[in-house]
Amino acid sequence: MGFFSKDIKNMDDLFVHTLRDVYYAERQILSALPDMIEKANDPQLKQGFQSHLAETRNQVGRLEKVFRLHGHEPSGVDCPAIDGIIEEADDVAGEVDDSSVLDAALIAAAQAVEHYEITRYGSLIAWAKQLGRNDCAELLQQNLEEEKAADKKLTTLAESRVNRRAA
Amino acid sequence: MGFFSKDIKNMDDLFVHTLRDVYYAERQILSALPDMIEKANDPQLKQGFQSHLAETRNQVGRLEKVFRLHGHEPSGVDCPAIDGIIEEADDVAGEVDDSSVLDAALIAAAQAVEHYEITRYGSLIAWAKQLGRNDCAELLQQNLEEEKAADKKLTTLAESRVNRRAA
Repeated sequence: MGFFSKDIKNMDDLFVHTLRDVYYAERQILSALPDMIEKANDPQLKQGFQSHLAETRNQVGRLEKVFRLHGHEPSGVDCPAIDGIIEEADDVAGEVDDSSVLDAALIAAAQAVEHYEITRYGSLIAWAKQLGRNDCAELLQQNLEEEKAADKKLTTLAESRVNRRAA
Repeated sequence: MGFFSKDIKNMDDLFVHTLRDVYYAERQILSALPDMIEKANDPQLKQGFQSHLAETRNQVGRLEKVFRLHGHEPSGVDCPAIDGIIEEADDVAGEVDDSSVLDAALIAAAQAVEHYEITRYGSLIAWAKQLGRNDCAELLQQNLEEEKAADKKLTTLAESRVNRRAA
């Protein structure tokens, strides 16, 4: 995007810009997850992050399909939001001096990531439908459902095991 | 938080740290909202942001109560996540060259903010309960309910008016 021109002229541009934003975000998450897997202590949490890593790879693949269906080559655009969320996750994890509390902090960080994706997919799906791209909306909906399910699984894990141990 | 020591030693520290994070975030949102109100074109959207500004002031007040109930003076801690989300909102809004598309972008940006708060309040409430602070959990729950309602209102506004006009 240029610095001196306004590059988002219509809804289609906004859709593609936000698609590039979430594409960048998913790939940043792919890079961040191995570190979270290593830091997690609870075996179920470690396993949960592992399976979300595989899921995220699929989601990136679906986004690439959406780009191509819509006539674009997949590409990212800087996303200060996800960079900030991941930076904060690293900062907080670096401050924690107890393995159970670290697990609670990692879950909260992962849920902040999930919620970022949930909101972006929500907007993208609404815009795709408005643009008559139900094919794109359907693929994005699959990603959204996975993110919501991942968020719920993390809540259950926090409430059933991790928070109790940390408190 | 120090650079050479691990300052989060237990669940209570994590709770207070995250409370300071969301306190900083709510106050950043208080600063960002007037600009969003000014940029919004749809009168219902403008009005929605106006009433969320009043709501956010109350939420900051509730957070201050939670700090004091828990024996702390209210204070913030840098939150790169909300800074990134707001930076991205500004960047995107600056790129949009159509008033209806700008409204759609502003709604998406506001929903990213809501979702950040929803996830943080979710974690804080779970931790407050685990720490036996049902009094704090109750106040945080009120903020959470307001954020969820604001998010839903924005979805309705997007789907009933704004996106259609922007497409």
